Amino acid sequence: MANPTAAMLVIGDEILSGRTRDANMHYLASELTQRGIDLKEVRVVPDEAPTIIGAVRALSSTYDHVFTSGGIGPTHDDITADCIAEAFDDHIDIRADAHDLLAAYYAREGREFNAARQRMARIPDRATLIDNPVSIAPGFTLENVHVLAGVPSVFKAMVASVLPQLTGGAPLISQTLRINRGEGDLAGPLAEVAAKFSDLSIGSYPFIHEGVYGANIVLRGTEPARLSDAMTTLKQLFPEDK
Amino acid sequence: MANPTAAMLVIGDEILSGRTRDANMHYLASELTQRGIDLKEVRVVPDEAPTIIGAVRALSSTYDHVFTSGGIGPTHDDITADCIAEAFDDHIDIRADAHDLLAAYYAREGREFNAARQRMARIPDRATLIDNPVSIAPGFTLENVHVLAGVPSVFKAMVASVLPQLTGGAPLISQTLRINRGEGDLAGPLAEVAAKFSDLSIGSYPFIHEGVYGANIVLRGTEPARLSDAMTTLKQLFPEDK
Repeated sequence: MANPTAAMLVIGDEILSGRTRDANMHYLASELTQRGIDLKEVRVVPDEAPTIIGAVRALSSTYDHVFTSGGIGPTHDDITADCIAEAFDDHIDIRADAHDLLAAYYAREGREFNAARQRMARIPDRATLIDNPVSIAPGFTLENVHVLAGVPSVFKAMVASVLPQLTGGAPLISQTLRINRGEGDLAGPLAEVAAKFSDLSIGSYPFIHEGVYGANIVLRGTEPARLSDAMTTLKQLFPEDK
Repeated sequence: MANPTAAMLVIGDEILSGRTRDANMHYLASELTQRGIDLKEVRVVPDEAPTIIGAVRALSSTYDHVFTSGGIGPTHDDITADCIAEAFDDHIDIRADAHDLLAAYYAREGREFNAARQRMARIPDRATLIDNPVSIAPGFTLENVHVLAGVPSVFKAMVASVLPQLTGGAPLISQTLRINRGEGDLAGPLAEVAAKFSDLSIGSYPFIHEGVYGANIVLRGTEPARLSDAMTTLKQLFPEDK
């Protein structure tokens, strides 16, 4: 049976302007791969409601799961929650459960639970909260969309909250052979290996390291025995790289 | 006049599986911003022809420029050039100009110009070559799509080859104020500044550093005087962060 599929939607002008280097995509990709959920697409979009709504609808209808990051804080440019509600025609307002979590937290901390912070309790009616052990303000799941914070430490904590609830597939495992030759020398034999092991995904990732051309050949699949067979074949073809 | 718009299409299973951390998106974003071209969307897709073709068509018809990275090497999983040709109904084969560049290079290097390496001379008929001073195998521009390599050093060299040929807009400049308070304390006053300076883009990017909540407030615009006025207003509101 095919693994469940997923997409990620990264929301934020700061990524597109080059101000911030996104860290969440790489983290989510690794976590999903380990869990046997295939990340099939990532989109990065600006803080613009029509674009966010359009992307959420497109990805939600194409993949089993969608994970968003960014835009759920208390400031004026945090519009993700409202966009998700609109994408699914749900009503959104400050919700009692999220409000109470945050009110208790700020009371403990001795900080004011002001209007801006109350915005973080805006949750669509039909959504389920996602636990945020770092800074309390929750994420949420609405239909197949999981809405997470953009701050990397909070994003990671929310991924840890939501992933155990999802059904994964067979975890994708991989083996890598580093070959210190140009891809052009590998390509012919490699294509034959790829044809022979067509049930595996075999990728070639070239590098240039201190002026030397090489490639990492990555075998991916779900059956360890097949990976080992393919690796044995590869090592026979490129014996000096054992 | 509005700035030209751009999208980026990152092609490669290795990014989506979490094996490789993409480095090109951040680089391109910074370069385009400096040149006054607004990066409006990034998509990351796997090495699958129908997905690549669909994304190229969608992005090409929506934005002024599209930049792709990855999938133009000599191995069996390098399918980008053929997908671009198909997206624009162009014919593709080994093209004499690219073939001659590569043949001369491998002759100088004393390396075999074999069938796999000749694949890197597959260029659509209507495309213009993009110079690759690092490893010679060229990128190309077809209609408004600029096809670049995935290896970061080569990607950067190709960006340097193609960007001077594009018409930019007014470069976006930015100023940042770091404020060591939680976003919830800033959000109210900040929304008022954003309303007053509605011609600027004002973003709040929260962080948690050694347990302390803070935010970087980033002002973006094309007129230095407006940025300075907004920064003065901000500093008056948050005087201890001067």
